[in-house]
Amino acid sequence: MSLSAYQQLEQNFSRLSALSGASAILHWDSAAMMPDGGSAARAEQLATLDVLSHELLTQPQTEDLLAAAESDSRALTSWQQANLREMRNKWRHATAVDADLVEAYSRATSASEMQWREARAQNDFASLVPKMTDVIHLTQTMAAAKSEAFGVTPYDALLDQYEPGCVSATIDGLFQDLEEFLPGFLPQVLERQAATADIPMPAGPFDIDVQKKLGQEFMTALGFDFNHGRLDTSHHPFTGGIPDDVRLTTRYDSDDFTQSLMGTLHETGHALYEQGLPSDWRSQPVGLARGMVLHESQSLLVEMQLSRSPEFLSYAVPKIRDAFKGDGPAWDMDNLKRLYLKVAPGMIRVDADEVTYPLHVMLRYRLEKALLSGDLPVGDLPAAWNSEMQSLLGITPPTDALGCLQDIHWPSGAIGYFPTYTLGALAAAQLYQAANDQISELPQDIEAGQFGGLLSWLRTHVHEQGSSKSTDEILALATAAPLGTDAFKAHLKARYLP
Amino acid sequence: MSLSAYQQLEQNFSRLSALSGASAILHWDSAAMMPDGGSAARAEQLATLDVLSHELLTQPQTEDLLAAAESDSRALTSWQQANLREMRNKWRHATAVDADLVEAYSRATSASEMQWREARAQNDFASLVPKMTDVIHLTQTMAAAKSEAFGVTPYDALLDQYEPGCVSATIDGLFQDLEEFLPGFLPQVLERQAATADIPMPAGPFDIDVQKKLGQEFMTALGFDFNHGRLDTSHHPFTGGIPDDVRLTTRYDSDDFTQSLMGTLHETGHALYEQGLPSDWRSQPVGLARGMVLHESQSLLVEMQLSRSPEFLSYAVPKIRDAFKGDGPAWDMDNLKRLYLKVAPGMIRVDADEVTYPLHVMLRYRLEKALLSGDLPVGDLPAAWNSEMQSLLGITPPTDALGCLQDIHWPSGAIGYFPTYTLGALAAAQLYQAANDQISELPQDIEAGQFGGLLSWLRTHVHEQGSSKSTDEILALATAAPLGTDAFKAHLKARYLP
Repeated sequence: MSLSAYQQLEQNFSRLSALSGASAILHWDSAAMMPDGGSAARAEQLATLDVLSHELLTQPQTEDLLAAAESDSRALTSWQQANLREMRNKWRHATAVDADLVEAYSRATSASEMQWREARAQNDFASLVPKMTDVIHLTQTMAAAKSEAFGVTPYDALLDQYEPGCVSATIDGLFQDLEEFLPGFLPQVLERQAATADIPMPAGPFDIDVQKKLGQEFMTALGFDFNHGRLDTSHHPFTGGIPDDVRLTTRYDSDDFTQSLMGTLHETGHALYEQGLPSDWRSQPVGLARGMVLHESQSLLVEMQLSRSPEFLSYAVPKIRDAFKGDGPAWDMDNLKRLYLKVAPGMIRVDADEVTYPLHVMLRYRLEKALLSGDLPVGDLPAAWNSEMQSLLGITPPTDALGCLQDIHWPSGAIGYFPTYTLGALAAAQLYQAANDQISELPQDIEAGQFGGLLSWLRTHVHEQGSSKSTDEILALATAAPLGTDAFKAHLKARYLP
Repeated sequence: MSLSAYQQLEQNFSRLSALSGASAILHWDSAAMMPDGGSAARAEQLATLDVLSHELLTQPQTEDLLAAAESDSRALTSWQQANLREMRNKWRHATAVDADLVEAYSRATSASEMQWREARAQNDFASLVPKMTDVIHLTQTMAAAKSEAFGVTPYDALLDQYEPGCVSATIDGLFQDLEEFLPGFLPQVLERQAATADIPMPAGPFDIDVQKKLGQEFMTALGFDFNHGRLDTSHHPFTGGIPDDVRLTTRYDSDDFTQSLMGTLHETGHALYEQGLPSDWRSQPVGLARGMVLHESQSLLVEMQLSRSPEFLSYAVPKIRDAFKGDGPAWDMDNLKRLYLKVAPGMIRVDADEVTYPLHVMLRYRLEKALLSGDLPVGDLPAAWNSEMQSLLGITPPTDALGCLQDIHWPSGAIGYFPTYTLGALAAAQLYQAANDQISELPQDIEAGQFGGLLSWLRTHVHEQGSSKSTDEILALATAAPLGTDAFKAHLKARYLP
């Protein structure tokens, strides 16, 4: 029996899924396991996988198969139709750029990422400039090709890679809303917090093994399946791997357990999304996470909405105290609650509180548009960074390691990614509000360490949707509203200015 | 400027090298890192990489390029000519089997390997039979195809995959020599050792972290470069990865540090070979290790010839004693020397002493020929195993976990591999004898913990030769003799019946 066009496409995309899965594990290995001396060979491996994937996706027959399957799409189920739409979108991105560019881009980003690790450790931005400049140039070339092919701006063409369908006009609207709100709100919060007593910090050192065990305990309680994933250490925490084998990383500070623990919970939100993707569609585009906005909504829902709620802290603080044998006023429940809700402008985005975090993102949004347009040469980035930090957050990084070297995104070619963090924060607030409305006695469950109801709600409304619908459709079905700032602002007011 | 046929081949083989490197890291990950739930997806990834490699290697143009390059080979350097010969051999192996078989074989071996881990842990051979039977059937099909294509026996066709050019007639001759020697020699050694006092064992538990640190210390002293490799843990110790990023694994027993330490030293011998392969040829076939005989010669040279020598133990024992804070008669230098030279028939091949080890290999050589010919159905393996163990070593495994389930080779499809262990032992003895003849004051260097002279000799005579010559040529140049049993027998007599 001969296969239909659609079935042939499924076979090809299944092979592509295996290649991208191999790549994902190798990327994780590069960050969590690989000795430095392996980096050149690894770059070759990843570039070869990228090029082969690109060749497979852009082979002439794919276009014919897509057209044939689309002309007969009434015969398909709704999930198959959605899968076909996702295939078309992947094909559209792949055919917009040629194989040489894909290969050069893969090599350049690998080299630049490795250099970034070194540059950050040595606080030496100058050493990163040549390799990062290569990456930015190649990103510009890629954005120009996609802009031409899709008829959108170069920036929107890149944005579409991370959040399909999203355009800067939407971001501009939402960010303007926040810019009208935050500058007035932040000083009130700071004033309110300044009026109370200083927050004593629990004193370390905090054993790394104990920190890791505690992280694993919370991961397990939240529903992370260690038969389908691991927890390791890397410079820059991330969630990688594949849905059947999620590789989550964090970093530890023996003087401060608080950041690492919340970092682990953040990544756990990402990991639960991956592990909850529709199991029948694991090797197909429709089975992938919808986009970075929903992905970040899941991490922030766990880290910010859930894990800093009074009911979660009532559950978690006794466990934290036991793990570190904490004793004294610094370990009081009320003190730890205030510690986890402390708002303060700081240098590091991933350590930022939820009030100041959007300002970190706005800075990056402005600068990455300037990097892409060419208005901002890479060499001028430190000065531009420091000036924006001063204007948005009122502070200036003492070193580039605490400034423009802190993130791996740009050195690895990810432009158009940062805004999804804040859109994700908005979506998280909206989803958590809806979950609270729809799940009876959720706060009591959380206080009792019972997270099954919340996970089940997220599975149904977000995870198991995969890419079968758009982000807006998924949000509208779950929360009865399009993505907006209302729930986020209401959440901040209720939590920080009650 | 258009590329010559040879240059085009180099480009294609460079891409193949990147794919096989990706595969090697993923194989290591499967054994050392991956959670069980990732195994099905991993099998798909590895199968896809195998199929793509096979497709790349067997694409019609390869045959034309090989012919064109060979017709113009006088224009090539001797290394390029050797590289071309190795390319031809890889192509010959690949074109003998079709892509469907390659894919089915990759899937079947992944599934069977995972099942083997479970079966061994549960001592449940029956649970492995169906999947291992699939693997044996596919191996038979592959051997038949290669036998037909090469005009050799099916067993020799498989053997050629691990040790190019080797034939069973050679093995039969060398093994017959050993069969005439060992049955008379072993009882004399056992009698001699029985006549002395019992060897008291150092008492544990031995902290795993301390064992690992000690292993790393010896690895470093021997010349292992941790900037190009790692040490981790797996069920079955092995050396994987790529020359620029060697992934070595071992396993630990908290009741007995001795086996793990020697296991680590064994793998270090393999790792030094990989790290020492010619750096200019990293991505080409001629840059690969020559074959499994020389590979095993390097591990056994380090583990058996070097690390159990009195001069090495004089260097190592004080460090071992310090690490474990050992005290009392069990930790005496003489006792530990006797411990490391203890000869005793045992169940486990990888833990065997060098006198009884060849008997383990002979057992496997006999049985794998019977598995391949079909004379021995997989289900009958436990009985056949136990009967051979009784006849060759005079002992019967109490469980299959200690018997036919101990090795990963057959469940993963490696038939024709085992004999190379003993040929490697012969080569190790021959090379170590030559090194001692050619390096002045080698024993004194070793006693002082100076291994640079030995490593440099091995680099020149073995490692840096890559696959530029045959195993026989490399051995003849280094030791002025073809592979034989004389040096091995002389070594055993000198060490065990002085």
